[in-house]
Amino acid sequence: MDCFADVQSYSVETKRLHSATHDEILHGCTTDVYFVKTRDVLRSAGVLSSPVTAEIFARKNGIFAGLDEAMEILGGKGLEIDALREGDNFKPKEVLIRIAGPYEAFGMYETVLLGMIASASAWATAARACVDAADGKPVLCFGARHVHPAIAPVMERTAVKVGGCKGASCILGAKLAGMEPTGTVPHAAVLLVGDTVELARHYDAVMPLGDPRMVLVDTFKDEAEETLRVADALGEKLAGIRLDTPGERGGVSPDLVREIRFRLDLAGYDHVKIIASGGLYPERIRELSAAGADSFGVGSYISHANPIDMTMDIKEIKGVPIAKRGRLPGRIANPRLVRVK
Amino acid sequence: MDCFADVQSYSVETKRLHSATHDEILHGCTTDVYFVKTRDVLRSAGVLSSPVTAEIFARKNGIFAGLDEAMEILGGKGLEIDALREGDNFKPKEVLIRIAGPYEAFGMYETVLLGMIASASAWATAARACVDAADGKPVLCFGARHVHPAIAPVMERTAVKVGGCKGASCILGAKLAGMEPTGTVPHAAVLLVGDTVELARHYDAVMPLGDPRMVLVDTFKDEAEETLRVADALGEKLAGIRLDTPGERGGVSPDLVREIRFRLDLAGYDHVKIIASGGLYPERIRELSAAGADSFGVGSYISHANPIDMTMDIKEIKGVPIAKRGRLPGRIANPRLVRVK
Amino acid sequence: MDCFADVQSYSVETKRLHSATHDEILHGCTTDVYFVKTRDVLRSAGVLSSPVTAEIFARKNGIFAGLDEAMEILGGKGLEIDALREGDNFKPKEVLIRIAGPYEAFGMYETVLLGMIASASAWATAARACVDAADGKPVLCFGARHVHPAIAPVMERTAVKVGGCKGASCILGAKLAGMEPTGTVPHAAVLLVGDTVELARHYDAVMPLGDPRMVLVDTFKDEAEETLRVADALGEKLAGIRLDTPGERGGVSPDLVREIRFRLDLAGYDHVKIIASGGLYPERIRELSAAGADSFGVGSYISHANPIDMTMDIKEIKGVPIAKRGRLPGRIANPRLVRVK
Amino acid sequence: MDCFADVQSYSVETKRLHSATHDEILHGCTTDVYFVKTRDVLRSAGVLSSPVTAEIFARKNGIFAGLDEAMEILGGKGLEIDALREGDNFKPKEVLIRIAGPYEAFGMYETVLLGMIASASAWATAARACVDAADGKPVLCFGARHVHPAIAPVMERTAVKVGGCKGASCILGAKLAGMEPTGTVPHAAVLLVGDTVELARHYDAVMPLGDPRMVLVDTFKDEAEETLRVADALGEKLAGIRLDTPGERGGVSPDLVREIRFRLDLAGYDHVKIIASGGLYPERIRELSAAGADSFGVGSYISHANPIDMTMDIKEIKGVPIAKRGRLPGRIANPRLVRVK
Amino acid sequence: MDCFADVQSYSVETKRLHSATHDEILHGCTTDVYFVKTRDVLRSAGVLSSPVTAEIFARKNGIFAGLDEAMEILGGKGLEIDALREGDNFKPKEVLIRIAGPYEAFGMYETVLLGMIASASAWATAARACVDAADGKPVLCFGARHVHPAIAPVMERTAVKVGGCKGASCILGAKLAGMEPTGTVPHAAVLLVGDTVELARHYDAVMPLGDPRMVLVDTFKDEAEETLRVADALGEKLAGIRLDTPGERGGVSPDLVREIRFRLDLAGYDHVKIIASGGLYPERIRELSAAGADSFGVGSYISHANPIDMTMDIKEIKGVPIAKRGRLPGRIANPRLVRVK
Amino acid sequence: MDCFADVQSYSVETKRLHSATHDEILHGCTTDVYFVKTRDVLRSAGVLSSPVTAEIFARKNGIFAGLDEAMEILGGKGLEIDALREGDNFKPKEVLIRIAGPYEAFGMYETVLLGMIASASAWATAARACVDAADGKPVLCFGARHVHPAIAPVMERTAVKVGGCKGASCILGAKLAGMEPTGTVPHAAVLLVGDTVELARHYDAVMPLGDPRMVLVDTFKDEAEETLRVADALGEKLAGIRLDTPGERGGVSPDLVREIRFRLDLAGYDHVKIIASGGLYPERIRELSAAGADSFGVGSYISHANPIDMTMDIKEIKGVPIAKRGRLPGRIANPRLVRVK
Repeated sequence: MDCFADVQSYSVETKRLHSATHDEILHGCTTDVYFVKTRDVLRSAGVLSSPVTAEIFARKNGIFAGLDEAMEILGGKGLEIDALREGDNFKPKEVLIRIAGPYEAFGMYETVLLGMIASASAWATAARACVDAADGKPVLCFGARHVHPAIAPVMERTAVKVGGCKGASCILGAKLAGMEPTGTVPHAAVLLVGDTVELARHYDAVMPLGDPRMVLVDTFKDEAEETLRVADALGEKLAGIRLDTPGERGGVSPDLVREIRFRLDLAGYDHVKIIASGGLYPERIRELSAAGADSFGVGSYISHANPIDMTMDIKEIKGVPIAKRGRLPGRIANPRLVRVK
Repeated sequence: MDCFADVQSYSVETKRLHSATHDEILHGCTTDVYFVKTRDVLRSAGVLSSPVTAEIFARKNGIFAGLDEAMEILGGKGLEIDALREGDNFKPKEVLIRIAGPYEAFGMYETVLLGMIASASAWATAARACVDAADGKPVLCFGARHVHPAIAPVMERTAVKVGGCKGASCILGAKLAGMEPTGTVPHAAVLLVGDTVELARHYDAVMPLGDPRMVLVDTFKDEAEETLRVADALGEKLAGIRLDTPGERGGVSPDLVREIRFRLDLAGYDHVKIIASGGLYPERIRELSAAGADSFGVGSYISHANPIDMTMDIKEIKGVPIAKRGRLPGRIANPRLVRVK
Repeated sequence: MDCFADVQSYSVETKRLHSATHDEILHGCTTDVYFVKTRDVLRSAGVLSSPVTAEIFARKNGIFAGLDEAMEILGGKGLEIDALREGDNFKPKEVLIRIAGPYEAFGMYETVLLGMIASASAWATAARACVDAADGKPVLCFGARHVHPAIAPVMERTAVKVGGCKGASCILGAKLAGMEPTGTVPHAAVLLVGDTVELARHYDAVMPLGDPRMVLVDTFKDEAEETLRVADALGEKLAGIRLDTPGERGGVSPDLVREIRFRLDLAGYDHVKIIASGGLYPERIRELSAAGADSFGVGSYISHANPIDMTMDIKEIKGVPIAKRGRLPGRIANPRLVRVK
Repeated sequence: MDCFADVQSYSVETKRLHSATHDEILHGCTTDVYFVKTRDVLRSAGVLSSPVTAEIFARKNGIFAGLDEAMEILGGKGLEIDALREGDNFKPKEVLIRIAGPYEAFGMYETVLLGMIASASAWATAARACVDAADGKPVLCFGARHVHPAIAPVMERTAVKVGGCKGASCILGAKLAGMEPTGTVPHAAVLLVGDTVELARHYDAVMPLGDPRMVLVDTFKDEAEETLRVADALGEKLAGIRLDTPGERGGVSPDLVREIRFRLDLAGYDHVKIIASGGLYPERIRELSAAGADSFGVGSYISHANPIDMTMDIKEIKGVPIAKRGRLPGRIANPRLVRVK
Repeated sequence: MDCFADVQSYSVETKRLHSATHDEILHGCTTDVYFVKTRDVLRSAGVLSSPVTAEIFARKNGIFAGLDEAMEILGGKGLEIDALREGDNFKPKEVLIRIAGPYEAFGMYETVLLGMIASASAWATAARACVDAADGKPVLCFGARHVHPAIAPVMERTAVKVGGCKGASCILGAKLAGMEPTGTVPHAAVLLVGDTVELARHYDAVMPLGDPRMVLVDTFKDEAEETLRVADALGEKLAGIRLDTPGERGGVSPDLVREIRFRLDLAGYDHVKIIASGGLYPERIRELSAAGADSFGVGSYISHANPIDMTMDIKEIKGVPIAKRGRLPGRIANPRLVRVK
Repeated sequence: MDCFADVQSYSVETKRLHSATHDEILHGCTTDVYFVKTRDVLRSAGVLSSPVTAEIFARKNGIFAGLDEAMEILGGKGLEIDALREGDNFKPKEVLIRIAGPYEAFGMYETVLLGMIASASAWATAARACVDAADGKPVLCFGARHVHPAIAPVMERTAVKVGGCKGASCILGAKLAGMEPTGTVPHAAVLLVGDTVELARHYDAVMPLGDPRMVLVDTFKDEAEETLRVADALGEKLAGIRLDTPGERGGVSPDLVREIRFRLDLAGYDHVKIIASGGLYPERIRELSAAGADSFGVGSYISHANPIDMTMDIKEIKGVPIAKRGRLPGRIANPRLVRVK
């Protein structure tokens, strides 16, 4: 399979899902077709293998990510690559990646490269904002349900490894970040068992000893009441309760967190942690943290992060500075770039 | 490989890219780990195979999409599925998919299902808004470069097949939509050849006869000048010119389109179409269309579309209406649902 | 006691509360002292008993109220009084009351008269807005706790008799409006008894048969759970439940009302009414009514209503039109005025 | 008369005014009827005399007032009362009054207590803001005409004694604050006499020697002209002139004050003070003070002050911390509270 | 004197004022020097007398004016001129004047032509807006004091003749519009005479019989008082009073106009008109007219009108359509243009 | 010709343009007619030659200008004149000019004086703001085309001499400021020659040696391309290029300036300056300067400057302080005033 070699004969009939496989990505099937035409035209013009320098930049501030995957595309092709490191912050129009080498060795991957960097950098930037807001308390990435499953692990891996989250619930995402996935049980489980305390007892019975017992307390009863019921049932074994109150009941507010903390302490359960989740964003994390929340499950703020669009410009051809109208010809210096091996 | 069966033994060491493969998705590796725990707890409680009814809904208006892929997950498991049709519009809290059957047959796929529907519906909704704004003129989806390549084809397929776009440049996306990809050549090709007219001549020489000659005219020279140079060079063979003027030169404005149209007509080239691209959105499409643009290449408006978050609620267990706090117990009627076979 | 006769000798030493008694009001003790000086100066100038015409007006729209009390001041003094009727709406600068007679017979009561009309009209206007928003469903005035007890009955009497509320909880207020006070029991009672259902049973046991059983359901447990517990306990005898959810739990929202209604109906309790209270205002009443609420307890929107400031101008002296700078001399016609007997 | 003892037999037929008398207030006639029902229910449940702790708080910043009257209700019942001092500032949710003792000794007065504190604290807060803005120059409270006469003295007493005003025009209000009422004569007197200078002469002839001569100068003529006519007529005896220009003539502006001051000084009348009144509020007081005004008559800013709603929560029953949903159980420490004897 | 012929030798030493004389304007001394250079360059290039078509347009809506003066520049040179008529409204980018003929015959006057049209059209547009707002009542142009005296007559002539004003106070402006100037006497005269009534008597004695007696009534006393003093003094001979109240006294408000009208009518002076002036603008004119004002003196709204910038584009050279980048080549049709003889 | 002597006989029939000549201005023909009436009335009242003091002030901040012309009116009449110096900044209500002497010697010139000062001060203030923004780089005044030619030289002279501009293109304006006019050639010249480079060659051939070669580069081609073509053609002789890009092509943006500078430097043309023009205002000047622009041609920001309205008040008559209502009687001290000889 090589979409570059023969676009037309490539068939999608046997695909079950619509997302691209690794082979399809690596063989150019997700690239824009005009790069295929470009190859044919440049070959006709005799310039397909001209040595060029290209630079990638964004128009916003952000945290750089996606290089690992990008190097799967760029590596092993004899190109000279300089780039920021994953996790570095960047400014508008700063050069993020510089590629030097024959155009034909990488030109057709422009679509793929920009897409990888744009989305990963967006997730890293959003995750970092949450992590900064939590100021040392753990942030967990729970965003898989908002995005297509093909990229859920890319997002969660980036949020953890680059953004600084302390855990992820997507199995593959966590593993890519080098850890085991974390999470407890959802509302559905409570509903099926029919009572939160009963659910908590089954959970306690089934889970391995080292696994912390975290129980979701907003399914059937008021959170204050349910929290104490669960704490009474599990006692010292209860590690934490999770608040995920729906918007229809006012969501997870600072007042709610403060009250639950207060009631837990009053009843002698100061060892029980409070995990907050549900539509959190940096400012909200700050408020809930001040009210006593101990950790934060963040979903849509990270998974909805708008891609930080990337632009790749040809800046030199055969050593001569050039640029399209509107851009500065030649290499733009950036001493923070590091040669990628 | 079955992440459900044994989460811990699953290894990511041999993966080159971070995106999930079809097998990984179908075997639950991108699901949130708490559904695995849920399975163990429910089995312990003896309710894992209880018959339930679950409903999926959103909190916004939108265009429904993603069902095709979702059925790859849900199909063949003996479940009763009722759903809107791809392309149907929907309202906040309207039931979009109803699933009836044993919880264990689908519960663990909640993350995957919601992610598919949320992102596909967002792309369909954004594409439809552009198509409506173009009011019959063709809209092309050029958004692949803004998203991870694993989902670029899902997005472009959805934009075309559900949203109503008339073409897509991502090879795989177009094929999934049942057509050949469309597009011409990018700025990089013009830069490498060194002159737009020379590039146009090579392009004309190389491309198959039926392929419409569309030339990008904003790389080196003012668009008005370059347009006429290209038209003079290709004459009747020139199908259209593409305006993609960078923001540094004022972008593609109604004034620019109006002038190019005027100058083309004045020179006798009324057969040459104008394709506009670059940061287009519905209101801008309306303005450019009124100014004389003939078709529209849309990228970030579609690819940046925020996922329309989906919620799946258990609404019946063993035929008895139930719901978590904040939701209405039992099935919510929706006569627009259709049984999916 | 006559403050007019001898301001200086009047002593407040024996007063327990600070509010004015009826005698103090009727004898001028709450008037501004400059009217006392005015009397002395005018007597010296020989014009104290000049026949004058005075007119009272506001600068806003509103509903007219307070005339009943005002006539206690103006009646029996040989004055000619024309006025709107309590409950009439009025426009800015429209004449609301016209007084004709010797200045000394009423001049000193300007402070008192304007105060009565200003505050009563404000309450009537606010109450009417709520009643209009409820569109036929009953509105109850629960605002006594926001104002000084001396005027709580004036406010509630006005809200009912002029504004159109269907009940009031302040004992004296309801009686002045010609009805018995309404209300159930507050959170404090539930807290003391320790359980809402137990409280409901005591309430049912103690109250006279005709008294409708209305139970507050947000003290200890989630409203959905508590509502059904109470309904199960009292069955047919339960007339309604009251939702007064605190802001810390999201307040009384349309979503909450809709869900409680839905769950009551699902359980066969369609005869149970929903009374909503807590920070209601006209737009909120409309939303909650649409969501299924049956009646509305309104407090601060009525009791906080800003006084509609009134101005009293001398417009004729001895039959000659006159006015201070900025006002129109002479009587301003208003055919809606009615002679008050 | 005891509304608690027998609500139904209490009759309002002989009342002339609608405001509550002291007896009615002290005997519970202005309380909400549900506290009467509460008593009956709690007695039936056997918990009427349970020892409880209740706390009163607000949700805004403010200046605390109303305690004097509240103690008329609470005193002599064997309760333990801790409270801020009148005039103390307070923060949202800070405990303002803590009451400990048998519920039946004070529970029924919740409506009355909250109403007293809510309105008095609002007036004190507004008055203090004006006093602060005047920065040492005297502020006089002229707000009686905007509120019901029954509470006018409560308001003016609070504005002076707690808020820091230097005078009040309401006779009873001033006396409650321990001073004689202040004020001159209104527009009506000028109109009746027919000329400001003639009025000033009568005023000067009639008033006691020590009484400062203050003359209102905006009734018939331009303020600049009238000021000098009055100053020429009374000379050294003129203490001040009052500007109360109606909105129809531009109100009392900094420009007007500056000019009057300038013209007075130019004519050698630097001893004549300028009193400004008419819709003043703190920012306006600052501007007029900078322009040369010497004192300020404030009406509606104080009298319209929105009640600062108070909440009374049961926080302990028989020594055990408790609270309704949304509140923190048990006493909330506040070291600023002082035991009230 | 011919600035075109020899720029450098032209000397300004004998000029007393800085404004340009008619000769200087007609001989190019106020043109931009680059048109002189243009002439030299074009002569060198041999294209100075090429036949061209030029078009003048604006980018806003407006009322067209200035053609009369422009024709003094363009006339008699053998050019073909098509233009809108003075007083016609126009739209953005509509052709207002089309000039066809040898470039050297008019090119150097571009600065002068555009300046004349830009400022006159602005004044006409502003005056028309006031005239429309007055809806048939007369508007007088009093704006001379806001602009340099050299153009005061151009402005007032345009406001009257093109904009529709009914009078102007600038002597030369009125005469250019074909009428005698109108106006009464200013505050300075009242101050010098020392009393408005005395001034009115002198005015009445001195002025010709046919001249309407209009008296300014806000110099010393309140307008209401002064109006009646003047009316009593002049009786039937008084034609009107003018209100020009300074901002320091609230300006001329609808309330003031309404009161003056009311007091005049009450005293039997319904024949006395009210002329309002002082910072008027269309919306204010509407309000004052509704309040009873009879005519309006407008100054800064007309004289401050921002020039409606004009652009002159070469659109044909030797019959061939051409245009600079950003403009449409060739003549733009406008059927409303009329050939100017 | 003396409009004061005989208004009615003055005829405008022979005037070709509408602007006033110097003689007309100096003889009162542009004054408001009410000053003529004033003279007649004051003469009748015997106060025409009373000694008075008048003061001129504004209500805004600004830079003072116009005194030179004003002294042509006021000089030689035996008046005592104190004034700020041209170029001084001033504050609201600060005295700018004080005139002492017989009223008849200057009263009739009020309209003329205020008009001169109001417009000149506005231009000076606007020019100074641009000069300050350019922070040492030259600002040129190009505004003649936006105003009537009669005042174009007044404006440009003021912008240069008082405002600090370094050049002006209006021939007369520059000469009044004591310098030769500056400027190159307009778009029309480029259009007529047909190519910018050819135009540049003719320009170079024709112009005197000392004249700096500045070429406009946005007529036909993209600015980046045209700049380098011109630089290649003229080499060392090219002094600068002017950017005046039309709004239809995005105007002159910081991005454009930065790129042109970059491309010029890259090609070795660092001696070539960049002149920016087209709708510039202070903030834009700052941005373009930071991006590398070397000088700035400003038009409408200066020529559209709203007149800073001036007021002249009589403040003393025969040595006695006086003022109309709303103003402070007598001289207002201003130590910055200087006696004008």
